[in-house]
Amino acid sequence: MDFKEELKKYQTLVEEELKKYLRKENCPEKTLNESMEYSLMAGGKRLRPILTIATYKLFKKDIEKCMPYAVAMEMVHNFSLIHDDLPGIDNDDFRHGKPTNHKMFNEATAILAGDGLLNNSYIVISEDIKNTNNKEDLDKKIQVFNEFSIAIDRMIAGEYVDTEFEGKEISSEYLEYTHKNKTGAFLKLSVRMGAILAGSDEEALGKLTDYADKIGLAFQIKDDILSVEGDEKITGKPVGNDEKRGKCTYVSKYGLETAKKMLDEKTKEAVNLLEDFGEEAEFLRELAIYIKNRNK
Amino acid sequence: MDFKEELKKYQTLVEEELKKYLRKENCPEKTLNESMEYSLMAGGKRLRPILTIATYKLFKKDIEKCMPYAVAMEMVHNFSLIHDDLPGIDNDDFRHGKPTNHKMFNEATAILAGDGLLNNSYIVISEDIKNTNNKEDLDKKIQVFNEFSIAIDRMIAGEYVDTEFEGKEISSEYLEYTHKNKTGAFLKLSVRMGAILAGSDEEALGKLTDYADKIGLAFQIKDDILSVEGDEKITGKPVGNDEKRGKCTYVSKYGLETAKKMLDEKTKEAVNLLEDFGEEAEFLRELAIYIKNRNK
Repeated sequence: MDFKEELKKYQTLVEEELKKYLRKENCPEKTLNESMEYSLMAGGKRLRPILTIATYKLFKKDIEKCMPYAVAMEMVHNFSLIHDDLPGIDNDDFRHGKPTNHKMFNEATAILAGDGLLNNSYIVISEDIKNTNNKEDLDKKIQVFNEFSIAIDRMIAGEYVDTEFEGKEISSEYLEYTHKNKTGAFLKLSVRMGAILAGSDEEALGKLTDYADKIGLAFQIKDDILSVEGDEKITGKPVGNDEKRGKCTYVSKYGLETAKKMLDEKTKEAVNLLEDFGEEAEFLRELAIYIKNRNK
Repeated sequence: MDFKEELKKYQTLVEEELKKYLRKENCPEKTLNESMEYSLMAGGKRLRPILTIATYKLFKKDIEKCMPYAVAMEMVHNFSLIHDDLPGIDNDDFRHGKPTNHKMFNEATAILAGDGLLNNSYIVISEDIKNTNNKEDLDKKIQVFNEFSIAIDRMIAGEYVDTEFEGKEISSEYLEYTHKNKTGAFLKLSVRMGAILAGSDEEALGKLTDYADKIGLAFQIKDDILSVEGDEKITGKPVGNDEKRGKCTYVSKYGLETAKKMLDEKTKEAVNLLEDFGEEAEFLRELAIYIKNRNK
């Protein structure tokens, strides 16, 4: 398997799917719709929907059944980016190397575009649930809807704690808590969603959940490392941003060397958790390594 | 029936129910939870949840079945108030005579509290749907979940158009559009939710939907009138706020006298639509008159 090629295929699949949900009609809120599209189509790794689809594929081939949920994940992810970037929160001017939503449009539009994307994710889920007749599928989707809403709650709490404790010395317990909620909960959900929708048994679901926890932590540590030694032409974010802001990160807490060791460990543990899933899991294994090695 | 007494009973019922959903535990995001509680418990008429419950009661007595949806309505309503009040949108300092959320806490907290309340409404709905075994009830709740998500989308679009066209001359068509989306869609949903959950037939649902449209419009016109000639000690909002901001309202568009005539007409039409519902509908009839006569 050529991982890069496979990843590109997944990204294209997600982007094609997202386009189906964009509203192009001429209406008084046309610019609001354009601002949602601007952020949704501004690039990004599409990691969350890809995790959902790739996990689903471990069990079943009819991936169109999980696509609405993959789309919903990406909408929520972009909602969180737009709101985090706002002047009242992180006050960031660039994202993926492009002006942030409130810089491109204005603050009111960015607030409402974030609200709209969060809410749209639930429209997508409610439409899919409404059109499901099979009782077994319905139960799975309702389970996913419930976990989805709870994971977003955790994400918002994590963002709050992250903002609130900026510039303050915090314990490793707090750092763990912030990460676990802000980034971890939603990455875990991405994997769990795919597994639950595909009808995974409890044992496999447990292993995949642990895998998701490991790559979630690895993802955050790598983000913190990139914020210190990344190339801002590639990351699209100014280097030293976290430090300037007094953010407590895995690097500021443990130092660069220890952070890199932790990243290595978590990646290995994640890969090992997929042992029993055979060849089908090759992409998810490579994805863990990609998260570790990425330069943006 | 003593309407005022009945209204107070409903308000107490809603507030007692809301309290069950407040999170009091000690956790790193405790202040965020307090800020959500601050806005949720700051008062207000509780019009939306009351509409849901009173409509449900036209058909059935077991109102506990519609309570999660009534709570969800009030959460979303407060989400929209918190975000509308933000410096980036309306920049309001007072709401219900108290400091707005971002004034009481800070902007980051207010943005995330709004996000949290919107999302919490879906947690409440997903928990209730997850715990529903009866197929017939499940179908109704899924229908309501879908309409709920679409009405919020309309509310966000309406708020956008309202903000975008501030200070600009707009056509009566645009004024209608803004109102229909910003205030109307969600008031309509309040009534429809109660009727659908209680198993209303199509004819009754149609009449109740029309009733909701009329009181929704009456509500908006009255709001616009109060903004011009209300007593700010009672409304809790500065008089002349809309005018200062260059908002296009029913008063600025049609003049005070015509606006008052429209309010009268819509109220009468709303009351007439409840003819067939007998004594049970007395509260909803009185509610339409209350909306017309209220001074806050």
